[in-house]
Amino acid sequence: MERDVILREVGLRDGLQMVKSIFPTEAKKKWISDAVSAGMPEIEVCSFVPAHVVPQFQDHQEIVEHALAQPDLTVSALIPNAKGAERGFQLGVHKLNFVLSASETHNQKNVKCSTEESLARFDQVMEVQRSNPDYANTAVCGGVSTALGCTMEGEIPPARVMWLIEEYLKRGAAEVAIADTVGYANPAQVKNVFRQAIDRFGKDTTIVAHFHDTRGLGLANALAAYEAGCRAFDASLAGLGGCPFAPMATGNVVMDDLVFMFEAMGVKTGIDLDRLLEIRGLLSENLPDEPLHGMVAKAGQPKGFRPASHAVAAE
Amino acid sequence: MERDVILREVGLRDGLQMVKSIFPTEAKKKWISDAVSAGMPEIEVCSFVPAHVVPQFQDHQEIVEHALAQPDLTVSALIPNAKGAERGFQLGVHKLNFVLSASETHNQKNVKCSTEESLARFDQVMEVQRSNPDYANTAVCGGVSTALGCTMEGEIPPARVMWLIEEYLKRGAAEVAIADTVGYANPAQVKNVFRQAIDRFGKDTTIVAHFHDTRGLGLANALAAYEAGCRAFDASLAGLGGCPFAPMATGNVVMDDLVFMFEAMGVKTGIDLDRLLEIRGLLSENLPDEPLHGMVAKAGQPKGFRPASHAVAAE
Repeated sequence: MERDVILREVGLRDGLQMVKSIFPTEAKKKWISDAVSAGMPEIEVCSFVPAHVVPQFQDHQEIVEHALAQPDLTVSALIPNAKGAERGFQLGVHKLNFVLSASETHNQKNVKCSTEESLARFDQVMEVQRSNPDYANTAVCGGVSTALGCTMEGEIPPARVMWLIEEYLKRGAAEVAIADTVGYANPAQVKNVFRQAIDRFGKDTTIVAHFHDTRGLGLANALAAYEAGCRAFDASLAGLGGCPFAPMATGNVVMDDLVFMFEAMGVKTGIDLDRLLEIRGLLSENLPDEPLHGMVAKAGQPKGFRPASHAVAAE
Repeated sequence: MERDVILREVGLRDGLQMVKSIFPTEAKKKWISDAVSAGMPEIEVCSFVPAHVVPQFQDHQEIVEHALAQPDLTVSALIPNAKGAERGFQLGVHKLNFVLSASETHNQKNVKCSTEESLARFDQVMEVQRSNPDYANTAVCGGVSTALGCTMEGEIPPARVMWLIEEYLKRGAAEVAIADTVGYANPAQVKNVFRQAIDRFGKDTTIVAHFHDTRGLGLANALAAYEAGCRAFDASLAGLGGCPFAPMATGNVVMDDLVFMFEAMGVKTGIDLDRLLEIRGLLSENLPDEPLHGMVAKAGQPKGFRPASHAVAAE
């Protein structure tokens, strides 16, 4: 499958993490299989946090095993620390995503330590990997959250984001995500930060864009990152999951709208939009009280719409 | 007031045209005054159509006179034909916007004639202007609707849009708007069409972007048009007005979010976002059943947000 961009579905992790009701294990498995059938190349399927902290992910073993059995799927999971990482390595997850915040205040609030201490925890994750040769096939990745602004600190200097990417790479991170956790970013800032990151580190490292649509600029920011050379994007089906810092607002960029934008622009995602949109039914059935976002789902696709990936799919 | 882009509020025309209940004349006048106080440089205040066709605009004389009394406001109005134009010229409206469709089918459906016949009607408008020296101060402008796609015809060739712009300019149009009437456009297409239009005609003529957010790409398309050199944009407060072709969908790009995007990017709109957001109250009071859109209104502005126009406003 030829793809110009790699989209990663993060609804099962970033979306469901925000949802109060437990999403049934069987429905999660169907979501994963259906997304793979629609052409989704990568899914973040869970977070390796203790079940008492986030009960939503207590079925992580069954979910990961189901995901690993899918053809051509990169299975991704979030890890808060070395203990969660150990679990991920044991299960053979393809990518483990460690997260820290560019904002000291946000990092303290979120994981109760300084950003430097978080980097030390990332070292511990890498040590766990080195301790067992069976763990070598897992890519350990780093995420820089609140990289484009923080509800507590406001602006974050781009130099701090570059420093964190560099620290991650020194320690062996396979890729790094730049996350607009609170939806503060604007396209000019995105273009600047992603250009800097891709110029400095993009030759050997994938820089991933993780945007939230909290202030409506999610797709414009994705466009700006794409124009800056970014080719890897997180999003969630129906924009599942709100924003903990703005209760009324939407969370992740809507995957269906992002696929529409890229496919309409002639940028191949390898994802079949019709099949992707069908999966929304699974969400509305299992989360009847959760608002589902997405404009293409409401308005329908344009008459005569020719997605860029069609030619590929028809081959 | 220094401005990098000129935004035009079209909610009073494009928005209210779609609304079933009559918006009170006093509330329209307050909307206009408040928008001017917030720094709005241009407002399309009504359409010169017969009252039995669109009762919403039966108060057009009072509205236009009120608007013309505002300081530093360009007063704009839509005209369907020479008869409407005559009324606009008489009242001394600054800009009269004639509209035709790039899609033949849409033009037939909308104004019951071919696109060529619409151009002949535009000639009649220009003749009315020439017939009276008092009318000379009004700028007659042309709009190309369905320029980026049509619900009936699908794709519209960019060459047809260029041809229509050229025909308008030959006939003396002062500026031309490229409208994505049904929300089909994508950023790559927008960049291509606006680049062509601005390269060919932009030296002497303002090319205006009129986008609808029907499929969620409104702001991304505005960004693409800006990057192509466009500096004039239509939008409506709270995205007022739906889309007649997609009943569930939103209409015009949300003015408040567009102002936020530009100001966050460092692009001066000259509009005070706080004061603009306050005007939404007028809409919810007078249109309690109408959905109001806008993400910044929901989520709030970022902590420490410094709009580009602040420095200017503080001078």
